[in-house]
Amino acid sequence: MISFESDYMEGAHERVLARLSETNREPLSGYGFDRYCERAKEKIREACECPEADVSFLVGGTQTNQTVIASLLRSYEGVVAAESGHINTHEAGAIEYAGHKVLTLPHREGKLDPSALSAYLEGFYADANHDHAVFPGMIYLSHPTEYGTLYTREELTAISEVCRRYDMPLYLDGARLGYALVSQGNDLSLADLCRLCDVFYIGGTKVGALCGEAVVFPKGAPKQFMTIVKQHGALLAKGRVLGVQFDALFEDGLYFEISRHAVAMADRLRAGFREKGYSFYVQTVTNQIFVVLENKAMERLSRVARFGFWEILDANHTVVRFATGWATKETDVEALISLL
Amino acid sequence: MISFESDYMEGAHERVLARLSETNREPLSGYGFDRYCERAKEKIREACECPEADVSFLVGGTQTNQTVIASLLRSYEGVVAAESGHINTHEAGAIEYAGHKVLTLPHREGKLDPSALSAYLEGFYADANHDHAVFPGMIYLSHPTEYGTLYTREELTAISEVCRRYDMPLYLDGARLGYALVSQGNDLSLADLCRLCDVFYIGGTKVGALCGEAVVFPKGAPKQFMTIVKQHGALLAKGRVLGVQFDALFEDGLYFEISRHAVAMADRLRAGFREKGYSFYVQTVTNQIFVVLENKAMERLSRVARFGFWEILDANHTVVRFATGWATKETDVEALISLL
Amino acid sequence: MISFESDYMEGAHERVLARLSETNREPLSGYGFDRYCERAKEKIREACECPEADVSFLVGGTQTNQTVIASLLRSYEGVVAAESGHINTHEAGAIEYAGHKVLTLPHREGKLDPSALSAYLEGFYADANHDHAVFPGMIYLSHPTEYGTLYTREELTAISEVCRRYDMPLYLDGARLGYALVSQGNDLSLADLCRLCDVFYIGGTKVGALCGEAVVFPKGAPKQFMTIVKQHGALLAKGRVLGVQFDALFEDGLYFEISRHAVAMADRLRAGFREKGYSFYVQTVTNQIFVVLENKAMERLSRVARFGFWEILDANHTVVRFATGWATKETDVEALISLL
Amino acid sequence: MISFESDYMEGAHERVLARLSETNREPLSGYGFDRYCERAKEKIREACECPEADVSFLVGGTQTNQTVIASLLRSYEGVVAAESGHINTHEAGAIEYAGHKVLTLPHREGKLDPSALSAYLEGFYADANHDHAVFPGMIYLSHPTEYGTLYTREELTAISEVCRRYDMPLYLDGARLGYALVSQGNDLSLADLCRLCDVFYIGGTKVGALCGEAVVFPKGAPKQFMTIVKQHGALLAKGRVLGVQFDALFEDGLYFEISRHAVAMADRLRAGFREKGYSFYVQTVTNQIFVVLENKAMERLSRVARFGFWEILDANHTVVRFATGWATKETDVEALISLL
Repeated sequence: MISFESDYMEGAHERVLARLSETNREPLSGYGFDRYCERAKEKIREACECPEADVSFLVGGTQTNQTVIASLLRSYEGVVAAESGHINTHEAGAIEYAGHKVLTLPHREGKLDPSALSAYLEGFYADANHDHAVFPGMIYLSHPTEYGTLYTREELTAISEVCRRYDMPLYLDGARLGYALVSQGNDLSLADLCRLCDVFYIGGTKVGALCGEAVVFPKGAPKQFMTIVKQHGALLAKGRVLGVQFDALFEDGLYFEISRHAVAMADRLRAGFREKGYSFYVQTVTNQIFVVLENKAMERLSRVARFGFWEILDANHTVVRFATGWATKETDVEALISLL
Repeated sequence: MISFESDYMEGAHERVLARLSETNREPLSGYGFDRYCERAKEKIREACECPEADVSFLVGGTQTNQTVIASLLRSYEGVVAAESGHINTHEAGAIEYAGHKVLTLPHREGKLDPSALSAYLEGFYADANHDHAVFPGMIYLSHPTEYGTLYTREELTAISEVCRRYDMPLYLDGARLGYALVSQGNDLSLADLCRLCDVFYIGGTKVGALCGEAVVFPKGAPKQFMTIVKQHGALLAKGRVLGVQFDALFEDGLYFEISRHAVAMADRLRAGFREKGYSFYVQTVTNQIFVVLENKAMERLSRVARFGFWEILDANHTVVRFATGWATKETDVEALISLL
Repeated sequence: MISFESDYMEGAHERVLARLSETNREPLSGYGFDRYCERAKEKIREACECPEADVSFLVGGTQTNQTVIASLLRSYEGVVAAESGHINTHEAGAIEYAGHKVLTLPHREGKLDPSALSAYLEGFYADANHDHAVFPGMIYLSHPTEYGTLYTREELTAISEVCRRYDMPLYLDGARLGYALVSQGNDLSLADLCRLCDVFYIGGTKVGALCGEAVVFPKGAPKQFMTIVKQHGALLAKGRVLGVQFDALFEDGLYFEISRHAVAMADRLRAGFREKGYSFYVQTVTNQIFVVLENKAMERLSRVARFGFWEILDANHTVVRFATGWATKETDVEALISLL
Repeated sequence: MISFESDYMEGAHERVLARLSETNREPLSGYGFDRYCERAKEKIREACECPEADVSFLVGGTQTNQTVIASLLRSYEGVVAAESGHINTHEAGAIEYAGHKVLTLPHREGKLDPSALSAYLEGFYADANHDHAVFPGMIYLSHPTEYGTLYTREELTAISEVCRRYDMPLYLDGARLGYALVSQGNDLSLADLCRLCDVFYIGGTKVGALCGEAVVFPKGAPKQFMTIVKQHGALLAKGRVLGVQFDALFEDGLYFEISRHAVAMADRLRAGFREKGYSFYVQTVTNQIFVVLENKAMERLSRVARFGFWEILDANHTVVRFATGWATKETDVEALISLL
């Protein structure tokens, strides 16, 4: 059975694993105060061209979203997100558990629209009763989005400007950030994110690590962020496990190499689908492909390959997702195409 | 520099690491739905002689404490713990962040006293105003305690009986459980814990894993425990990372082998301290040794070995902690003894 | 200036105030343990034809919603409400502050649709990933709704049946309940609510009291509800203030007398608007009237009467709200009509 | 049966009640935006000699403590209080429910000791692991304390200086503030509190109002305090009910007149106890008297008077509390003395 289920089905890229082995016997300070964490942070700051950025390592995505958002919001504020945003749909209410409302706006292929955002904020403050409502306190977006789509630099700049105008932090969830940065037609760099966002994270779990997300605050983290992380149960005793992995991921551009491989595999597969006349639910350039399958074709394919159910389109068609990753083999891609 | 700083200063035991490598390329379902998690759970149930136990894997200790405690308490209930309990002192208020008070009782070398507990509960319900107070909703204890001491079976049975009488769950934090189970004079088994506790965890982070704690609910977990775990940001996408490690730890008794090694090393070191006439702050039989050092001796030792500061005893003496672990080398122990 | 701004602009009905004065010097136990609270509860149980109901008095609406909802939900559950529901829009995130998501469904003139609710729940459990999402844990609706509309007995029965099917409590926010119960075309009684709901509140603040809401749990309140109320800062020291008021409100049917007066005044005003050719934004039979005003007419009227802004309809028209209450004078209604 | 049970057993002082009646029919804006609230705030600012103070009205004490404390703390901070502090003992965990730990220090007759406080803070920051602990974020004290004792100006100044040194807000719970301000030997004024504290509240519930506490932020309230109040369910729709009462309480010094009456009654009763040879558990000068009663005497007295149980002293003696208030009659005091 060949697998295109998601990008977190295998362990870690071999170079990441090797680094864990090599450093395994070294006694190192806990909680992230070790030289691998330090070195990984330094490499990330370099990759971001942002020497003053504050970098922290957390274990997983929902944890990171909950911790970062709670660290930035005042109690009476909520976080604005697209209705399709991960924090709104698939995090078991982690944001609300931390006391904050997710204020949703309609999405366009997973994306927040800058002018819709602006109109919402204008409307909020124009409402004479807004003191009785949850204040929009920050903006959450993901890049790539849940639909594998990308913001352009122009769009992100527009959103960032709205945030600045309302003095609200902009947070970008980069669970799959690598796959965005190396995609065709992408025009955003890590340095751009540092310039336009107040905080974002570089996802490790879905880009070749066993686990781990690198949170980047370009202008510095909230006061006592480490204590906040601990309070959320998110501070790893063996912080080295995260530091060593990100040290490997950001050595010789491995993070981008992994991403390019996955996107190249996805591009090949996309081409295969296109050639065979399949239609796409959303046009993507990243490592996720959303295809409309006739139900019988879906059943047939599911006997040879694993992929993700997305949604029912109509009585005869289903949207499914194929995802590639660091471990995707070209032979598997070709095998799948040959079966289409 | 030889290191006795703590039991989480190195990576993972080589057999754990090897298992991660061997299984690395297998595509597996996320969130703990993989065969290694299943197998590890099965092995743990066997080690516990408790076939109906529910086992879940979480990443770290504070996270586990917060999630388990929040999953069991009603909103108006708090958790009773020794003043020295980890949840009361070194978890950055994670329990309160989840909405619950830690109700503290005095400790005796880190231990809760069954009769003090009973007296407290009697007093609570005797107070006519107790409807205005936080209700004691569960009992938290750690084994070994923060002071490396152990509960006897008799003591734990007495505490368990108090809990049953008041219909309160008993929770045992086993961050270093292995070191308790193999210690001289220990008379508690995993099966005893299953019989006496409502939930406990088998610590992995401090007993040879990169990370990971195995939560055991002998009589079944709270409804939707997985969703609660997710809500706390504690559900690992690559659940395999935990399953594979515990699968290795519970294969051929590796967990106990690691523990025995660490305790043997500690026993040797304890004997060395005793022979050289040092006095102990607390008498322990586990992998932690609390020694009273004359300050000049402390400074001298700190130039050759890493160990933990515990507390100032008086103007001239300090209590320090030496901890052993899976990675402690006999030659280092002997080297340290020769320097005493 | 005549006032139709809302139903909480004046103090308390004179008979309520008189009762506060008459009982003022009696020393009474605090926290609701006084004979007026007892008597008021008894009268409410009688009015509800539900002798086993548990009745509690809280101070205000948002407080009641927050406390009741938090007392019923498990941590991983949210409350399902119409998008227009008060808890979703005008309670400053009080529900999320208590840790729970408000799961919204589209509304029809403020009402939840039973089949839309049913479809949502079916969809939720059909989704293979629902363990990663917030579980629908209870249903919230208001009666009258935010739009002054009413559920029919048939509709409420249908919603109640959905709730029973999914074993979810049904909660009815009755901030303005009196105005519903006495309205033309209403076919729901307090006894019906006891039969169909798991909890509801009989609003006092908007129906003639200085403050106070009577929470009714027909089948008994959650364990230690009083402690939960205290924990929310919602337990009044002088509980008598609420007991005495509800004792007066439920003596000789004052609560219904007040409601009938307000609705009669609203009916007269509605007829006035209709006669003068105004159009209504929503058809209501309760004490709130939503009228579409041409903007110049609105400005003119606003010089002689106070009323509430609801929303902008188009460039030339605005929706405004006129509300009546216990203190509305017939002469004011006639005066207003004459000015239309 | 004569009553000395507490100071909140009767309704409101007649002048307060009269003012509620007089203003009852006036239609006024909700949520505190009415002229009585405005006037009451102005009078309080004058009484405080602090024209720039921000004043808000809340309903009850626990609510006020929860709302004020939550409005000032960062998520990783707790509130420092005496072990006997009301927030630590009798508020059902309202502070922890809002996510914050109550960090307790030993008390001396209900009071925090400035040097113990200073030592605690020094120790906290000296601990190398303090990043893993709850940070002391503000100081809570009550005046009078739970034991009816008072801080001297010197003591409060010392505590205030410690707070300034560590940049922590000082919060004073004035549930019974009136009884402190008019007591013999008291040397603190409202103006002093404005100078020394960052926030305090002037208790209404226990000093002649039906309900209500006036929160004073001498240097301004936290951003969007009104929204925070709403979020806690603490914003009264008919804010007038609080405004009108405080307007009456601060007219012609009624608040102080009530307090003086109660303290004079307590002084007379104290003298009676002293003359008859009773001993006091604590020496107080406020409206609460803590007397040691021989158990048989206690039983005898309990047949003619209501008073509060405080604690068991030994097998034969009990500590009980007698409290006076605005409604205490001189004839009752004399009657009680004659029965001693």
